[in-house]
Amino acid sequence: MPADDATDFATSDATSDATDAEVDLVVARTRFGADGLVPAVAQQWDTREVLMLAWMDEAALRETLTTGRGVYYSRSRGGRWVKGDTSGHVQAVREVRLDCDGDTVLLLVEQAGGACHTGDRTCFDADRTVVSGGQE
Amino acid sequence: MPADDATDFATSDATSDATDAEVDLVVARTRFGADGLVPAVAQQWDTREVLMLAWMDEAALRETLTTGRGVYYSRSRGGRWVKGDTSGHVQAVREVRLDCDGDTVLLLVEQAGGACHTGDRTCFDADRTVVSGGQE
Repeated sequence: MPADDATDFATSDATSDATDAEVDLVVARTRFGADGLVPAVAQQWDTREVLMLAWMDEAALRETLTTGRGVYYSRSRGGRWVKGDTSGHVQAVREVRLDCDGDTVLLLVEQAGGACHTGDRTCFDADRTVVSGGQE
Repeated sequence: MPADDATDFATSDATSDATDAEVDLVVARTRFGADGLVPAVAQQWDTREVLMLAWMDEAALRETLTTGRGVYYSRSRGGRWVKGDTSGHVQAVREVRLDCDGDTVLLLVEQAGGACHTGDRTCFDADRTVVSGGQE
């Protein structure tokens, strides 16, 4: 689970240039699962690190698009979760992409501080298994 | 949905250096959902493009780790799906990472050809909404 317990980093001045019509179109094209959620992958826009995977309901996706902040639905807490509200490790969202069948969201973000609650930069830093040195 | 209908590209000679003990440990650390599946994000290892998101059951994760090929569970077909078996657009897997709570897999792969069934390089190429020019 990504972090929201640290206390450093100021909140960002994220904004959104997306129009209401654009927001409606993205939401309409998104295929939420039976539980009303869609997986959302957050990627640092310049280094292309995969930071974390979280979940969005329609309200979270809409808020992300309209505010430019990474907003999710916390499955463990069962509600809205604005990334960085506690930790300050906010995500300023530059781009929202949907995959080819609309059931996955990719966010290109500027991540303040560590994305992970462990303090790591990404949630994928700690547990790595090398499969192949690159014989392909 | 990623592609499996094209006919170009040879199959890869993907192999795995992971030991049986390593495979068992990764599988044991993975927290599959109530449906027995875990989301798996495939990322091109060098360019760091996010290629696709698919799903794995335990057997698919184990086969990925032991063969070095990207193997998934197709929710639409309800069964094992070896990426590229039809299309030749195989994934040679270099590294398998788990996130901090073990409920998401990140694969670093060498993707042959387009990852997407549309012919696009990634499943996230076609539907992009700019949110912010980078005021953060």
